[in-house]
Amino acid sequence: MEQIHSVMMQIGALKNRLLETTKRIQALDTQVMQAARIRQDRLTKPQGSLGQLEELSIRLAGMTGKVRPRFPRKAVMVLAADHGVAAEGVSAYPQAVTAQMVLNFLAGGAAVNVLARQVGARVIVADLGVVSELPEHPHLQRRKIGYGTRSMTQGPAMTTQEALCAISAGIEMVMDEAKQGLDLLAIGEMGIGNTTAASAIVAAISGCPVADVTGRGTGIDEEGWRHKVACIEQALTLNHPDPTDALDVLVKVGGYEIAGLVGVVLAAASLRLPVIVDGFIASAAALLATELCPHARSYLIAAHSSVEVGHRVILERMELVPLLNLNLRLGEGSGAVLAMPLIDAAAALLDEMATFEEAGVSESEAR
Amino acid sequence: MEQIHSVMMQIGALKNRLLETTKRIQALDTQVMQAARIRQDRLTKPQGSLGQLEELSIRLAGMTGKVRPRFPRKAVMVLAADHGVAAEGVSAYPQAVTAQMVLNFLAGGAAVNVLARQVGARVIVADLGVVSELPEHPHLQRRKIGYGTRSMTQGPAMTTQEALCAISAGIEMVMDEAKQGLDLLAIGEMGIGNTTAASAIVAAISGCPVADVTGRGTGIDEEGWRHKVACIEQALTLNHPDPTDALDVLVKVGGYEIAGLVGVVLAAASLRLPVIVDGFIASAAALLATELCPHARSYLIAAHSSVEVGHRVILERMELVPLLNLNLRLGEGSGAVLAMPLIDAAAALLDEMATFEEAGVSESEAR
Repeated sequence: MEQIHSVMMQIGALKNRLLETTKRIQALDTQVMQAARIRQDRLTKPQGSLGQLEELSIRLAGMTGKVRPRFPRKAVMVLAADHGVAAEGVSAYPQAVTAQMVLNFLAGGAAVNVLARQVGARVIVADLGVVSELPEHPHLQRRKIGYGTRSMTQGPAMTTQEALCAISAGIEMVMDEAKQGLDLLAIGEMGIGNTTAASAIVAAISGCPVADVTGRGTGIDEEGWRHKVACIEQALTLNHPDPTDALDVLVKVGGYEIAGLVGVVLAAASLRLPVIVDGFIASAAALLATELCPHARSYLIAAHSSVEVGHRVILERMELVPLLNLNLRLGEGSGAVLAMPLIDAAAALLDEMATFEEAGVSESEAR
Repeated sequence: MEQIHSVMMQIGALKNRLLETTKRIQALDTQVMQAARIRQDRLTKPQGSLGQLEELSIRLAGMTGKVRPRFPRKAVMVLAADHGVAAEGVSAYPQAVTAQMVLNFLAGGAAVNVLARQVGARVIVADLGVVSELPEHPHLQRRKIGYGTRSMTQGPAMTTQEALCAISAGIEMVMDEAKQGLDLLAIGEMGIGNTTAASAIVAAISGCPVADVTGRGTGIDEEGWRHKVACIEQALTLNHPDPTDALDVLVKVGGYEIAGLVGVVLAAASLRLPVIVDGFIASAAALLATELCPHARSYLIAAHSSVEVGHRVILERMELVPLLNLNLRLGEGSGAVLAMPLIDAAAALLDEMATFEEAGVSESEAR
């Protein structure tokens, strides 16, 4: 009895923390956006000729509250965890790869490391629930909630307390990192089996048929895909997550790293930090965050359009237009970091280009 | 008679120069590509998960002849010239803007300057035929072929000698720049009226109806667009360029800066330099270069998919898949420079990522 009582208290405290974070998330600053738009339209180019970059620069102004924002201090947070559903054989890779890839991140040999070096972004790696014990490492944040989730085909993937603890860990990570100075954040993940969790989340929230939002992950064959769809269908039937309750969906078919990313997104939005969302799994986490707090959507930038079919459903639901379309399907934040130069470019154009007056260039006769 | 004789001699010499350049253009190095592909498939990620970047990295290896190529020394060449057809009112901007924008490039205030600073690329600006006399400037290459072309609606836009001179100027520019050290080249242009020339070129080469390959350039209205289409149709009827003779098309409906870019592309390809092609006009020049020498195509990278409708026709004809799709329509090499970080990223991933063996990561069970 005593033990249950203390757990319930903790859930209350964790829920309060989540609520405090979401309460701090503000709408975009429309006055600053208006000023940015006026400047954008005075720059030496035909209006609209920089396409998506113009709208992006104005959104960035609204997020940061600065008419000419810049993003020198960048970071990518890669959250890793294991999934009980991996035991059902839903992935082309063995579960051990989650831990192996965490070590690869720490050694600097993974795609996200290479791309982060190109743009000068810090790589922050966190263990939210890898099955094995990872060695201490100066660059590894040890925030383990459990040793892998339970299989969603047998019951809820985690407890409410675990989900809230993971969200809270994500919030803490951003708050800690912001103290070092941070202007732009990318989110990524690693977890064998986590496209299964992401597909289950999207199916639960959107009501779309599972087959329509399930892809081949790291590369399973047709039979493997059918099995993956069946597993997700079984999990949804067994757990019947409430589509109007993002926390319930997260608990029943999510994952520790996905829960952590929910916290990361919400905390970043509460600090007016633009968040570059990577592919399918990171986007599923972002979707849950926006279901918990619709204003969070304003701080999201979709990096790319993933090969995973469910990704399009998420992006449409969040009304986000991806910057890149390069048929990526790697995860680990790679696509999000790859989009960073475009965000820098949009901001630099708004900040540095000469206006028609400054450059003495004649304007369109059509004006 | 003497004058004509000397002109004819000069044409012979210029044609020889062009021929010497095209003769030096080699096919991609398939052995190096094979080695790059083997390395790409050993890197710690599911095969194919880096999408277009994987194929790009292998092409870059084939172009440069290096299994792990890198591109530290970058440049963008922006060639400017005026177009007689501008007098027909085919543009939303007055012709004076060509010269004004050249000064803006030299002052560092244009979009291409801002983007080039972001990636550390040198900006090389050349006057191939602006109507006004431009002041001397340490960063302006004065290679004027004439004071604007003649209007294609009245006869050929230029003479064969002028076209060959402009191509030769482009070849020289690359040869000079390569001496400074150059690994990656982007091409761009500036010239009020030059979407009209580009549409005429594409219509002439492809046989597509003019209306299908003509857009709104810097922003003309519906009536302006109809007039632009009529001008191009008139020019094609009057000059009947030979679709199988790229030089004839260039002479009759091209422009000095477009001719210069033909030379730039051919010279870069002859040096095994990857060429990032900007939007519609730069692509029209690249198309002419590949018609003159099909092997040149192998060295082209399409930066983005322009808003201009004719651009898609060119890219399909050259079988190039653009890296970006951001609804750009600015020109001046801006889109090409914007794509540079993606090329650096593709090369860095191939060069720096750990292999499965190096990182001790298990491979797919599906292999």
